[in-house]
Amino acid sequence: MEVVKKNFKETLPQVSASIEKADFLVIDAEFTGIINGRDVLVFDTPAEYYLRLLNGSTQFLLIQFGLCAFYYDEEKKMYMNDTYNFYLFPRGQPGPEKIFMCQSSSLDFLVAQGFDFNKLIRDGISYMTEPIETKLRDNIKERQKTYSKEKDPVNIPDEHKDFIEETCKNVRSFLDDNKSDEMEIDRCNSFVRLLIYQELKLRFKDEIIVETKILENKSRLLKVLRVKLDSDTKSHTTKRIEREWDEFEEAVGFSKVARMISQSEKLVVGHNMLLDVIHTLNHFFQPLTDDYKAFKEFTHCMFPRILDTKYMSSLPPFKEKVNSSVLPHLLQTLSEPPFALPNVGSYEGRGYSLTEAKLHEAGYDAYITGLCFLAMHSHLTRMRGEDTSRPDPNSAVLKPFLNKIFLAKTAHQDSPYMNFDGDDPSPSRDHVFHLTFPKEWMRNDINLLFSPYGPVMTQFVDDTHAWVALTRRDQARHVLRGLAASARVTVRPYHVQKGLKTSRSDDLEQLKRACNMTNVPRSRSQTVATNLPSPRVWSPPRTEKVSRVRANSISSPLQSPTKVTRKRTSSGVFQVDDSESPPPKKSELDQASEEALKKEKFVANGRRKASVTSGDETKEQKIIERFDSDSKINCVSAFKESDSWD
Amino acid sequence: MEVVKKNFKETLPQVSASIEKADFLVIDAEFTGIINGRDVLVFDTPAEYYLRLLNGSTQFLLIQFGLCAFYYDEEKKMYMNDTYNFYLFPRGQPGPEKIFMCQSSSLDFLVAQGFDFNKLIRDGISYMTEPIETKLRDNIKERQKTYSKEKDPVNIPDEHKDFIEETCKNVRSFLDDNKSDEMEIDRCNSFVRLLIYQELKLRFKDEIIVETKILENKSRLLKVLRVKLDSDTKSHTTKRIEREWDEFEEAVGFSKVARMISQSEKLVVGHNMLLDVIHTLNHFFQPLTDDYKAFKEFTHCMFPRILDTKYMSSLPPFKEKVNSSVLPHLLQTLSEPPFALPNVGSYEGRGYSLTEAKLHEAGYDAYITGLCFLAMHSHLTRMRGEDTSRPDPNSAVLKPFLNKIFLAKTAHQDSPYMNFDGDDPSPSRDHVFHLTFPKEWMRNDINLLFSPYGPVMTQFVDDTHAWVALTRRDQARHVLRGLAASARVTVRPYHVQKGLKTSRSDDLEQLKRACNMTNVPRSRSQTVATNLPSPRVWSPPRTEKVSRVRANSISSPLQSPTKVTRKRTSSGVFQVDDSESPPPKKSELDQASEEALKKEKFVANGRRKASVTSGDETKEQKIIERFDSDSKINCVSAFKESDSWD
Repeated sequence: MEVVKKNFKETLPQVSASIEKADFLVIDAEFTGIINGRDVLVFDTPAEYYLRLLNGSTQFLLIQFGLCAFYYDEEKKMYMNDTYNFYLFPRGQPGPEKIFMCQSSSLDFLVAQGFDFNKLIRDGISYMTEPIETKLRDNIKERQKTYSKEKDPVNIPDEHKDFIEETCKNVRSFLDDNKSDEMEIDRCNSFVRLLIYQELKLRFKDEIIVETKILENKSRLLKVLRVKLDSDTKSHTTKRIEREWDEFEEAVGFSKVARMISQSEKLVVGHNMLLDVIHTLNHFFQPLTDDYKAFKEFTHCMFPRILDTKYMSSLPPFKEKVNSSVLPHLLQTLSEPPFALPNVGSYEGRGYSLTEAKLHEAGYDAYITGLCFLAMHSHLTRMRGEDTSRPDPNSAVLKPFLNKIFLAKTAHQDSPYMNFDGDDPSPSRDHVFHLTFPKEWMRNDINLLFSPYGPVMTQFVDDTHAWVALTRRDQARHVLRGLAASARVTVRPYHVQKGLKTSRSDDLEQLKRACNMTNVPRSRSQTVATNLPSPRVWSPPRTEKVSRVRANSISSPLQSPTKVTRKRTSSGVFQVDDSESPPPKKSELDQASEEALKKEKFVANGRRKASVTSGDETKEQKIIERFDSDSKINCVSAFKESDSWD
Repeated sequence: MEVVKKNFKETLPQVSASIEKADFLVIDAEFTGIINGRDVLVFDTPAEYYLRLLNGSTQFLLIQFGLCAFYYDEEKKMYMNDTYNFYLFPRGQPGPEKIFMCQSSSLDFLVAQGFDFNKLIRDGISYMTEPIETKLRDNIKERQKTYSKEKDPVNIPDEHKDFIEETCKNVRSFLDDNKSDEMEIDRCNSFVRLLIYQELKLRFKDEIIVETKILENKSRLLKVLRVKLDSDTKSHTTKRIEREWDEFEEAVGFSKVARMISQSEKLVVGHNMLLDVIHTLNHFFQPLTDDYKAFKEFTHCMFPRILDTKYMSSLPPFKEKVNSSVLPHLLQTLSEPPFALPNVGSYEGRGYSLTEAKLHEAGYDAYITGLCFLAMHSHLTRMRGEDTSRPDPNSAVLKPFLNKIFLAKTAHQDSPYMNFDGDDPSPSRDHVFHLTFPKEWMRNDINLLFSPYGPVMTQFVDDTHAWVALTRRDQARHVLRGLAASARVTVRPYHVQKGLKTSRSDDLEQLKRACNMTNVPRSRSQTVATNLPSPRVWSPPRTEKVSRVRANSISSPLQSPTKVTRKRTSSGVFQVDDSESPPPKKSELDQASEEALKKEKFVANGRRKASVTSGDETKEQKIIERFDSDSKINCVSAFKESDSWD
């Protein structure tokens, strides 16, 4: 069911009922862009991953929210789905308008899927964070107290005096003629409208009511209404107050649904859902900050039970059989033996069925995510010889997957998830080194440098820095000694470079240093908020080490000048790379290492870096990368779903 | 005539012909937003004005470009118009995609005027700057050299071996069966597609051609084509090369039109055209830098004859008769005595007529701007007793208006234009002072402080700083002495605060200091360029004092945390304020001064600043300002065209 501004109020009770009766909820969102600036690196920790998304993704707008409620029909003995597609657009009155970013390729992609941007902008539902809502509420109350008070008059400049006089004369005639009950005054700019308003109130006092009429094309004119009863004026003020509160409620809009979902405490399922979660919290609850620990706690508090089907499909027994966990591919795989999709029904106009494939409509993607979840759950319970029908988030069978969100970019480096109910994995990085090398060096030079220790996998950070991972981890202890003498390079162990005391430290100050963070307040989408508690009685923990920084300007020191072409994947997040290419086996790395990792600044196909001579060419090569998706180097581990390499 | 991607190539010759035969051209553009961050202050110099727009406006996208060519029909003895509405959207392949900003109120406004965003995104014409075009061209040439070379193979991981084998078997059957000439392979992610491509080429060599097919919904699959003749393979490469150059030309797109306009050297007319000019240069020519002098020179070089009808209408003999110079109001005024609109014709489907009012369609706005220009020109020549028909940019009658662009925000402080062919006005500011005052002070306190010197006009910069202008300029010399003793405030003369040696200095270093600029490279819309000369043989002047900084990140140090709700005006730029409210006369300032200038952080209607006690409330009040457009303080000099104050 499509939900827009016009039908939002009347649909709200149905949404509430759907959430109420659901066994579990599935969410999916569409955005105006994926990532701006530098993407996640394969050796980023979960905390760094979070920060990079916070800095690079949250300036984009969430424009469609899909909510699919799966509820069990006891009679039919099957699941039914109520699915809602909400079009979301932040308006300027009375809520805060938004300045947000768009990525042209994302918009292009969405339009190709049939997304209607005109409907979005015209009919999108408003929303706001809780801090903004509170402020707005207070502000309206304050303002409404002053409605009866007199305002100081503004003097009428000479050049407008004639027009004002003429207008007053016209109003006098209008009142005396007694033919109609309203007249309009147009062709004035806003200043002149103020003067007229002021003058008419002065001269005609309670004989008239003057108000602004906003036409469909947004232009304005003044409407003068005859006051027939004394109660007209009074009720005018009352009506005005009522109208303002109605507009307020409308402006809060979709945030109510987000909070309903949260307060239900039901299992919330998604596919590759990290961005969905970040955007949901940031748009409808409270702006997120650099504090990773606080982010995890806040997420867990708002959504105490979450499950990521992309993570679920990456583990046995699904991993071996799932060739590609991109959502439509996953659905296809799970519809064939040894799996089976459940039969899920819906009432007319209330939910989806598989016959109406509408990929990348958020509601539909949520629906098929739910199908995949049920299929995988059934498979597991069947293997255990249990009843397969209804997933229970408290069950043992779901326990391994609960509250873990997939980290696509780092999954193949043993960092496959963020754990919202415990510690993140912190795999050994003893075989990983940070390398500083001369500008003219290429991948081959690095391979050569490390050749005594076996094959390596290199991820370039920039012109002169890279992460290098040994395939033969046993060789790690020889590296520092062996390369210490080199005059041309500097090699540092992973934990030293990251500023970690040990490889398992979760000292947030160190994490921030590692990300080169400064305590500069930064804003996502330019809305300002204070740290007010949410309705779920959660207060962000205050620690001395970490100061909560407030969002306030779009850029961030983290963003490097690298601009890379991004494309959407059908899972709805960003480029599918590591998660699509399996981890190379040790024996294959001899050849794979040259191509294995995307050099962050990319080199044009066949164009040797040696031909690049000046410092400016970093940027030039970045321009080139934008155009050149043929570069073979991209292919293996940084594979993009819809990239053309031929 | 509407021009989109599909008909752009075929329309280009017509556009060229229109430009060729035109007496003058009129331009107008629509954007995704107006200004982000702090707006221009009333005492900003033209250089500061430029910098503020550069920092606050150029991250938005120009999405529709209207070009109206007025050409004289000798037989009919009247003007005809050829008007083009170009929908513009930067695509990712092969050109650089864009990450750009949007202001929700601007989008809202445009949709209300009937703007079709789906058409924009789906069918918008691409474009790029010259530096990008050059790089792209080089890149394509480089890449095409490698098409015949072999690429190093990627090893096939175990989990894909079965699928690859099966696929190869299918292709073998396809070739042997000889039933059809092409087969498709789908349901692979991009990595698997690479493996298949590689393997097929290895095993089947010249028997087949393998290429990627992109479906309408942007998903990809592989197509295997049977090679029937030896020439098939060769022509495949040739066709590919041809296709890439076609795509390249398509990607350069609208930039060609912009350059045609420039190279014609014809008179280019606009209405309140500063933003149009800045965006045009930035999108289609070369990214602009902080160097104001270079900007003016570059503009003058690219467009040696420009005329701003808003500026023209602000001077005698129009000034007295024009109540509002907002474009549709100006048109209305010029259609009545003593003025008259010219009769301008058009051929079917080629231009506009007044019967089809389509305000805020860029082409239509350009058309009516042209009508206004002709009407004003006729009026002038009639007054001089000359022939009224055809404007000549070299004529004396147009000389006062030529190459001056209106500065709406500072016009009432005697700084009404930027002069692209000479010095900007630099009015006396001896009566203007920079005031530092205690946080709790309100406008009244400032009025009181200055009361010995007569009424003042105050523009707040932030919580503790403001510009204060004396109405009684003769009192200026007493101010410093009189207020020097005050412990609570600091008063500095204008030129001292701005760091100017004299009030007429144009030392750019000082201007930058005045703007608190740092040499941080900054990007608009995230495209990177180098300073390559344009085709009109113009090289940016290099001075030692000013280092040319390259655009590279969206934010800027200039942006303060102030967020103000912006709305569009029908002139298509930003809020109409000073230009709509006439300069207050001396006798009126007693009352007007309290309201005269918008306090930048705004105070809610009726809510006294005294109730604000903590430092955080600056931001709170900014939030409030977003909601509270009723504040009377806004009314006089900061009047917004479509603001509601009742």
